Amino acid sequence: MENEIIRRCRAIAACTEEPGFTTRTFLCPAMREVHALLCGWMEQAGMSVRVDAAGNLRGCYAACAPGAPRLYIGSHLDTVPHAGAFDGVLGVVLGVALVEMLAGRRLKFEIEVLGFSEEEGVCFGMPFIGSRAFIGDPILDPAVKDAIREFGLDPSLLAEAHSADDVLGYLEFHIEQGPILESLALPLGIVEAIAGQSRLQVQFQGAANHAGTTPMNLRRDALAAAAEWIGAVEREARGVAGLTATVGRLEVEPGASNVIPGRALATLDVRHAEDAVRRRSVDRLVTCAEETGRRRGLSVTSRNQLDQSTVPMDTSLVGMLECAVTLAGFPLHRMTSGAGHDAMIVARRIPAAMLFLRSPGGISHHPEESVLAEDVAAALKVGAQFLEEVHARLV
Amino acid sequence: MENEIIRRCRAIAACTEEPGFTTRTFLCPAMREVHALLCGWMEQAGMSVRVDAAGNLRGCYAACAPGAPRLYIGSHLDTVPHAGAFDGVLGVVLGVALVEMLAGRRLKFEIEVLGFSEEEGVCFGMPFIGSRAFIGDPILDPAVKDAIREFGLDPSLLAEAHSADDVLGYLEFHIEQGPILESLALPLGIVEAIAGQSRLQVQFQGAANHAGTTPMNLRRDALAAAAEWIGAVEREARGVAGLTATVGRLEVEPGASNVIPGRALATLDVRHAEDAVRRRSVDRLVTCAEETGRRRGLSVTSRNQLDQSTVPMDTSLVGMLECAVTLAGFPLHRMTSGAGHDAMIVARRIPAAMLFLRSPGGISHHPEESVLAEDVAAALKVGAQFLEEVHARLV
Repeated sequence: MENEIIRRCRAIAACTEEPGFTTRTFLCPAMREVHALLCGWMEQAGMSVRVDAAGNLRGCYAACAPGAPRLYIGSHLDTVPHAGAFDGVLGVVLGVALVEMLAGRRLKFEIEVLGFSEEEGVCFGMPFIGSRAFIGDPILDPAVKDAIREFGLDPSLLAEAHSADDVLGYLEFHIEQGPILESLALPLGIVEAIAGQSRLQVQFQGAANHAGTTPMNLRRDALAAAAEWIGAVEREARGVAGLTATVGRLEVEPGASNVIPGRALATLDVRHAEDAVRRRSVDRLVTCAEETGRRRGLSVTSRNQLDQSTVPMDTSLVGMLECAVTLAGFPLHRMTSGAGHDAMIVARRIPAAMLFLRSPGGISHHPEESVLAEDVAAALKVGAQFLEEVHARLV
Repeated sequence: MENEIIRRCRAIAACTEEPGFTTRTFLCPAMREVHALLCGWMEQAGMSVRVDAAGNLRGCYAACAPGAPRLYIGSHLDTVPHAGAFDGVLGVVLGVALVEMLAGRRLKFEIEVLGFSEEEGVCFGMPFIGSRAFIGDPILDPAVKDAIREFGLDPSLLAEAHSADDVLGYLEFHIEQGPILESLALPLGIVEAIAGQSRLQVQFQGAANHAGTTPMNLRRDALAAAAEWIGAVEREARGVAGLTATVGRLEVEPGASNVIPGRALATLDVRHAEDAVRRRSVDRLVTCAEETGRRRGLSVTSRNQLDQSTVPMDTSLVGMLECAVTLAGFPLHRMTSGAGHDAMIVARRIPAAMLFLRSPGGISHHPEESVLAEDVAAALKVGAQFLEEVHARLV
């Protein structure tokens, strides 16, 4: 089955807006082909399939009796430009495979497999369109509504995208998109929280001047100040367990080789599982930037662009996932997701849990993104065990 | 006279390609107006004026007897875009004023005031067209020849731009374009050398990765490495007297706030009066970049783009300038020019010396570039004394 899952993911990767690459944005024409492929596999597994008004593909597998609660298994079907074959898609294909492996057997709960229409935020600078519609967030952007209409759906019916009333929870399988599991030689990781995140812009304003005629002691070099601070950012992150802090963008003006930089504009991305830890680090780094500026005669300003709290996964579901991992015979590893996922949005309304699969080389958002067949087999085994856990705990 | 000199410089600044700013590139139409203004002042001072085939304006003031040697006094008449009124022009206007102050008196040598046509390198990415023609460097660029033709001159006659055979030397007055004299509260500085210069590109190649999912110990962050090295560049320059070292440009890729930088490309500009000192510092900084890369698992490559030796000014002329400064009653200050000047080119063939005038605020290449009337008066006094020195030393 694991090889079939990988084959299906690769077949979906061939549905693209851009020949030679995998690029699939919100409700692009290629998404119809994805829906057609998945719909076939879903129906073959005994599911009834629909596309809701937010463009989410949904396959429902009935329980042994009517009126049963529902378990959701899902992830997203859109991609970044020039993507790999597994980010998002693997979670949906795995969900379908788990139902297929039931081979017609009915459980005490319904299973709905969700293929969310949008998670990456490529088209509208606003991610999670599919999962936000699912939890009942209003979709207000007229461009999104136009895209929905263009795909042949009716945005006035967005309420039909909402989740059911009697819900057990939401489970998302996803590649880690990072190197941690590989570095620990582990196939799987149980996500206990999706890390909170701060994004800031920090500006160092000094004085541009002639690189040849301005002696070192009379300079107010914005890049030298920013460089000193970037060193402090790295030291802060290395000194606080579990913290990541990144300066990903740095613009230097005027940017001529023979002119001392007058202005440097840096971004700062800070993440940690504990909001208080993250915010303390951000405060320290802002203070550090200001002190660096003061000492060097520069003016430093910082602007908060995002302060997103940590989203914990549901403890009960995480516990059941741990049981499943143990019973399936794999080592337990709890971890924090540094990246955002649909589960982060869904968790606002529904108990949510996530299982990470090791990412070879930590590579994602890249054509070379991959997954090991043995890890897919492990995830399948854990997923099947999880379904048994849920089944056993229902009266 | 000093106020008249400043007035003349400001009148020349009004000759521009771009209304509202001072922008005057090689042989642009506005240069004709500059020539007309200077020609008037030169003839009034008793000089015979011509424009040579390289577009240099030249006013010659005869000696008391024929066959006398010649002293050149000059600087350039072109500007950077959105320039100030004094860079270059002041040296030419001061030269004319010194002749005017002779009030018809003839010395034992000829004085030729040179207004070089091009120094800044704005048009053809190749500076010093005027002074290079003057010392007999061939002008090969067809675009330069076209510009000469378009101005109504004949590029086949470029040999007429060459300097005379019996030459005493070349004296250039120029604003400092830096903050040193102001910081020392000195009106004037004697340039003893024009600093040698190295330019390099240094590339840090790491691995771009997700800022949220890649823990600090598994990163190969190109910007963090570059920042560490930029700190070392600054320390090196602060630790070596007279050295300047500048990272003026830094390009970071991919440059997204949530992606660890995979590549950083930096420029390095290093200058010092002693070539051996400069080259040792460059070697240390290249080694430091490589070590930083090795320690962090990055590959570092550097490319030399320029290795220009220091150009010393003529010791005999510098000595006479020192005498003149002392006799004129001003404090002596010898300094290195961190920027290039026409004197650097002229010195290849002719003994050359330079006198710097204090730059208020260290500002140049900017509309706010200025000069103090008292400093112009000081330069005039020193210039007149210098002429007397030269006169006295000739048999």
